[in-house]
Parts: sequence; structure tokens; C-alpha cells
Amino acid sequence: MSEKLYDFLEKTVGKDLWTKDLIDLVSYSSDASLNKNRPEAGVWPETAEQVAAILAFCNREKIPVTPRGAGTGLTGLAVPVQGGLVMDLGRMDKILKVSLDDRLAVVQPGVVYAALEEALDPYGFFFPPDPASGKVATLGGNVATNAGGMKGAKYGTTKDYVLGLQVALPDGRLMRTGSNTMKTSSGYNLTQLFVGCEGTLGVVTEITLKINPRPTANSTALATFDKMEQAGRAVTDIMKSGIIPSVLEIIDNATLVAINQNSDMGLPEVGGMLLVETDGYTQGETEYQLEKVIDLFKKNGALEVRKAASDEEAQSLWLARKSSYAVISRISNALLVEDMAVPMSQVAYMLAYLDDLAARHKVRIATVGHAGDGNLHPTICFDGTDEEEVKRVHAASKELFKKVVEVGGTLTGEHGIGMDKAPYMSLEHDQAAMETMRGLKKFFDPNNILNPDKMSV
Amino acid sequence: MSEKLYDFLEKTVGKDLWTKDLIDLVSYSSDASLNKNRPEAGVWPETAEQVAAILAFCNREKIPVTPRGAGTGLTGLAVPVQGGLVMDLGRMDKILKVSLDDRLAVVQPGVVYAALEEALDPYGFFFPPDPASGKVATLGGNVATNAGGMKGAKYGTTKDYVLGLQVALPDGRLMRTGSNTMKTSSGYNLTQLFVGCEGTLGVVTEITLKINPRPTANSTALATFDKMEQAGRAVTDIMKSGIIPSVLEIIDNATLVAINQNSDMGLPEVGGMLLVETDGYTQGETEYQLEKVIDLFKKNGALEVRKAASDEEAQSLWLARKSSYAVISRISNALLVEDMAVPMSQVAYMLAYLDDLAARHKVRIATVGHAGDGNLHPTICFDGTDEEEVKRVHAASKELFKKVVEVGGTLTGEHGIGMDKAPYMSLEHDQAAMETMRGLKKFFDPNNILNPDKMSV
Repeated sequence: MSEKLYDFLEKTVGKDLWTKDLIDLVSYSSDASLNKNRPEAGVWPETAEQVAAILAFCNREKIPVTPRGAGTGLTGLAVPVQGGLVMDLGRMDKILKVSLDDRLAVVQPGVVYAALEEALDPYGFFFPPDPASGKVATLGGNVATNAGGMKGAKYGTTKDYVLGLQVALPDGRLMRTGSNTMKTSSGYNLTQLFVGCEGTLGVVTEITLKINPRPTANSTALATFDKMEQAGRAVTDIMKSGIIPSVLEIIDNATLVAINQNSDMGLPEVGGMLLVETDGYTQGETEYQLEKVIDLFKKNGALEVRKAASDEEAQSLWLARKSSYAVISRISNALLVEDMAVPMSQVAYMLAYLDDLAARHKVRIATVGHAGDGNLHPTICFDGTDEEEVKRVHAASKELFKKVVEVGGTLTGEHGIGMDKAPYMSLEHDQAAMETMRGLKKFFDPNNILNPDKMSV
Repeated sequence: MSEKLYDFLEKTVGKDLWTKDLIDLVSYSSDASLNKNRPEAGVWPETAEQVAAILAFCNREKIPVTPRGAGTGLTGLAVPVQGGLVMDLGRMDKILKVSLDDRLAVVQPGVVYAALEEALDPYGFFFPPDPASGKVATLGGNVATNAGGMKGAKYGTTKDYVLGLQVALPDGRLMRTGSNTMKTSSGYNLTQLFVGCEGTLGVVTEITLKINPRPTANSTALATFDKMEQAGRAVTDIMKSGIIPSVLEIIDNATLVAINQNSDMGLPEVGGMLLVETDGYTQGETEYQLEKVIDLFKKNGALEVRKAASDEEAQSLWLARKSSYAVISRISNALLVEDMAVPMSQVAYMLAYLDDLAARHKVRIATVGHAGDGNLHPTICFDGTDEEEVKRVHAASKELFKKVVEVGGTLTGEHGIGMDKAPYMSLEHDQAAMETMRGLKKFFDPNNILNPDKMSV
């Protein structure tokens, strides 16, 4: 089978665009999760037509295909569990169009988030989701996971900006979904079936994104709390107050300590910290919102509230927050980054529960999160060589997923299901929904060649 | 077959909740479009379980079921083309929950848009789509068509607020989709398959909506222009300027004249008018935006720019705009309300094209629109008893659809495809997309009982 695949790739894309070299296959065995499996080949298609032709061949020959962006996924969704072919979309990295007149950008899936940001910046426009991995993650990956980030509370996630797609289907057809218009009610919303599908229904070969004008004013502040629970209550209060901050982030003690160990930020090593940004066109508007937020910080027992005195200070706070994954990864040799979202009323409860969970299972948890939309990232830090500890980590993780669903939450706010959460999907989704998802998978990909064994479909 | 259906309904919902009376069946023969066909029965289910049981029976017996909200649809989507059963969801009209802590509302499909608005108003929250028919249209209908309205340019449409659904599937299963959280990347986005599906894939029995804080400040202005084309160019300029007005509406001369004939508004009967609202938390913010917009009005040759001096004046302008459908409907005995959206760069071109189209086909067109998202409503006003004129209307309509697609637009921005645009769907969607939509229809509704003959699926 491998030989037939190699021959096909050689004939179809030519020797420079595919690989069976061990060094490449090892790179393509894993993503940013702990999962691993080696594929038989890797391919770097340069056109939608090549993607389609490769899928058609693999579909006929029943060879698994795992599409891959930058491999920054945290749940194993780019890991080729069944071997076969890894399709790296990284060479399809062109920004095809930026049209302010049409308020949209058209990109290939391999464009890095930051590259689009850079292209839009001179016009005063941006693509708001702002994932923490934006410096490396690709827009195709953003679409595959419905990626979010710090601006989610006010600006939503990737799905809110995808106007249309070109998708290669497993049988080799290319399909356009959506519209170049700001709104449409024409036919079924095929676009949103592919956003967040983790490459299990089709391979996205082109993305049309709505773009937003970047607000021209903002104000930033931080508040410290004795306990994360107090910070959580402040979050619920803020989000029901009438104000929607453009950013509302939470950082726990373990993360603050780790940031200080790796920087000269000198952050206060308190129980919990909230970072807030409000935005608008005028300073009066952003200050008005910030004052309302600060009142709610104080009402919920903030120890200290400090406004950023300058843009530089604000930027360094955001940088500190964005570095949290990197600095936490130095705490221990293994990490399990969780990514649940809970209803806005449950933020404080979940934060208290996480403390309790860590104590009961004797595991270390460092938590940050996009608090403004209830999206928390508790990271379990552990010694991957200690079997007993690994067992405790998995037990804690399993209990956490059950609790998240019990309070009406979701297993993943922005990272996707991938492999790690696949066994838990039916906790969250009822039987009819699971049957429907599996039926849709079968409808689009009857031979189950596209990113198999992901998402429990 | 009818007798068997009547027996089933009598047994299942009881005599007060179904009808075969001629007067009811005549009411259920049409919606706000020009289409008509009489069903064999009507039913008013009160629970999701009744809806599911009715679908299961009709699926077994292959009886067509047409779900219906308030019947305000303009494309025939509530018309029971194949007869059978009309399922009026109007009795499922309870607001089940308003939770500010969770930033959401849970409603039954028969709740009228205005009733939810009223329920949210005391808390300073709202559900933004704001369809023009909001005083009577139901939220279930809003979901079925992905309804939009005047706030779309800044706040999006119904789809942007539906967090989750309960849906009755044709085989009688009840399914929950989505989440009570502000974001999720868990599994396929089943929710958005049902938003805008026009009741062809399932019947929505419960809706969970994200709600927004209502801005506390706004500023309103109008600008008059000699030609609609100039107004259209101002629209494109505004939407690329960095400002996103909360409302940006366009009204043509024919509509202005009609409004004046039916009110004491005394609007200037110019070639075209733009109405704009900017919003925020502070008056400084809204005025700042308004001044920017006004500069662009002037740059594009506005004859007059007038700020609303008071809230009352602003309200009366919005009321005038919202009355346009009612006043235009008095011009002639028949109307065809079109509803296309075009890319933002094409607004001016389409407005000029509409003038030309009307002249060439000798038809009268009155145009209003949600200009800020490129959604135009040219209404063809005609004498439905004049066969020659009816032919010209259909010819003009067909040419219009082709042109819309040619400039990259969509057949419908917010009304849906229904019956009227079904023949034109494949102009907009490529073959793979049409096949996929038809395949999805078959997957969810293999016996084609749900709102058959709509949307060309």
C-alpha cells in the first residue's frame, strides 16, 4: 500500500512536495499534545486541485489522511492515529485578497494568524479571534478547531468571522460554501459544518474572513484577589453589568509565580488576578467602562486595582498572559492543558472546584482563562515518568470533565475534541446528537479516511 | 389518509389542539408571500413531546408537515405546498428562562420577538437582530430563516445569538444541540444546520439565545442625496472607514413618497435617504462616530445632513423606516419583496442597476435596505390582475437574481429561500454544494415529510 501511495504522490505533486523521510515522519507523528503515531508519508500540496486529487486517491485506496496546520493543537487532532498520509497545508500560505471595500480577506489555509494581522494592520483592520498561538498557528487550523482567544468575550471566535470556504471533499470534489456578503439566509449553513470539524469532513483549501476595524482607544487594568473564587464572582458580575470588556483574563497563583520566575514582571503573587481591557473609539468611552468594571472588582474584594499607566505597561501585561503556556511548560516535564467553558454563572464555582480537585487527587493545577466567556484553561503539571502520578492525573481529568458537563459546560471552548476528549463526548452530547454527528461523518466521509479516530465520530 | 391523521391528532393532542375547519385551513394556506395551498389539518402542539410524536406519525405515514410561526415569511416557506399538516408552533410561547448571570434566555419557538424584547428590557439587555416584523414574528420563525434586521451591520443576525436548540427530528427523536456556554468547540456545529433550514430538517422546540447589554447612548442622523447611487457609495465608504454604525438604512424616493402619503412625517422627497445610528456607552463616543459618518455623507454629495435633535425625533425616523413595508403595500394590489445582499463594494452599483432594471422592464420598484450589511429590499409593486404586468415582474425578478449572483451576492439576506427563490438556488451555489444540501436533507428527512418543496433540496 505504501508503495502505491508513494508512486501516486511522486506522479501527482512531484518529488519536492512529498516525503517518506524518517525525520519528517517523526515530526508529523505528534502535535502539541502528548499523543504520537507515525504516518507513512507527508505531503505539502500547493493547490486546492492537488488537495482534491490526493483525497480522491486516498479515498479510493482507503488510506487515512490527517490534515495539519502548524501542529499547535493541544488535543491530538493532527496526530495520524491510523498512520497513512499527513497533509501539511503549510505551503498554501498566500493571502489572496484583502478588500476593505468588501470588508473581507481571502486566505489559503496555511497562512499564519500573525501574517494576516500584519497584512491588515496598516488599514486599521484586524481579524479578532487572537489565539494565544497566533504567532505560529495557521488560519486553517483556527478554522478546524473554531479557535478563540483573548478577545472572545466581546468579539467572538473564528466561527463568527468565516463568511465562506472552499473545501475539498473526500471523493475529490471541490465545493464552495457561504457568500462574500455580510449576511445570507440562502440554503443550509454548510460553512459552519466545516468550522470546528477538525478536518474530519473535508479539507479547507480557501477561507473568506470578515474583518473588523480595530478600535482606536483602549484602557487596561489589573485587579488582585486573595482567592480565585472572588475573581470568578467579579467575572460573573461584570458580564451581567452591561459592560462587555474587550478582554477579561484570569491568572492563578501558580501561573503568576511561574511568570515571575521567567521574567522581570514582578507580578504580585496573590491568589488570583484579573486583567481587563475595555475598548472603543474615544478615551472617555473606554474609561467609562473601565470605571464600572473597577467598581465590580472592588465590590468582590479586590486587594489592589491598578490601571495601566501607559500602552507599554498594558502590552507587557498581555505579553505576560500570553506567555503563560510557555512558562508553565517549564514547571514539569509533562502538561495536560484543559480547555473547558462553563456557563457564566459557574465561573467562581469551577475555580473553587479546581482547587479542591487538585488537593483530592494530589496533582498540581495552574489555571489561566478567558474568563469573560467562561473559558478556563486549568493545566495539570506532572511528571510523565511517574506512573502513579500519571494515573492520578487521568483520574482528576476524568472527574473534571464530568463536573464541567454537570454544571452545563462544554468539554472544549477553543481547542477541539481531538483524541483526548473523544471518549467523553457523549457526556456532553445526547444520544441523538452523537448519532447525528456520526451520521454526518459517514455522509461526508463514508470510507472514514479523513482524520479518523478523532471526535468519537 | 386524512381520516387516519385526524384520528391520530384527536388521540394525541385532543380536540382543542387540532383543526380541520375550513376557516383555519384557509388561514394556513398562505403566508406573507403570494403563494397558496390548502392543508388537510392544522395542529397546535403545546410540548416538544407532542411535536416529536406528531412527526414520528407523519414520518411513518408519509404525511407532509409544514411548521409555521406567525406566517410573516415573504418567500412562501410556511405554505403547505403538498397539503398535509400545518404545525403552528404559536402555543409554545413561553419564555422559559432569562438568566443575566449566564447571559442567555431560553424560549419556546412560538414566543414573539417583541415579547422577549419586553422581558429583557427591564434588565437593560436585548436580543439584537430586530427584524422589521418583530411585533408579530416568532423567534422560531427567526431561527428558521436566520432573520436579520436593522441592527445587523454591527450586531449580526439570528445565527450569531443561537447558543443551542432542542430539535424534534422527523423520526420522532428529540435532540439537543449546542451549549449554554458563550463558546464551544465540541463536535460538529449542529445548531447552525438548523438555523436557517426553514423547517426542512427538523422542528425547533426550544431555543437558547445569547443576549446583549443594550447600549446606553446613541446618536442619529439622516442624509439626503440626489441619487441612490451616491447614497450607496457613502455606505461603502462608511463601512470601510473604521466606524461600524449600529444602524445604517437606505430609503428610495418611491418609499419616501409613500411614507409621506401615509404619515405627517414630511420627509424630503429626494432621490435617496440614509438613516444612521451610532451607539455606545457615552455621548462622546456616539457623537465621535456620527461626525465621521457625516463627513462621509458630505464627501459623497449629501444634499442635507440633519442630526436628530431628540430621542423622539430619532424614534420617529426608525418608525418611518419600519413602516415602509406597510406603506408600500398600499401602492398596489400585489408586491414582490426581494431580499438580496451584495458584497459591500457593490451597493452603489446594485442601486443604479435597480433603476435601470425598472425602466427596462417597465415595472415599479421601491427600495429600502439594511445598507450597512449590503442587504437591499427592492419591492416590485404591480397589479396582480394584469397578466402582462405579472409577466414583466417575473422577467425583471429573474434578471435581478442573475445579476445579484453575478456581482458575488446572495439570493437572500434574511428572508430565506422558501418557494420563490428555490428555482434560482443553483445560480448561487455550485453543484457540490447543491448535492451536499440535498444529501443532508435526505439524511435528516429521508421520507421528505418536513416542509417539502422548499429550498430546492
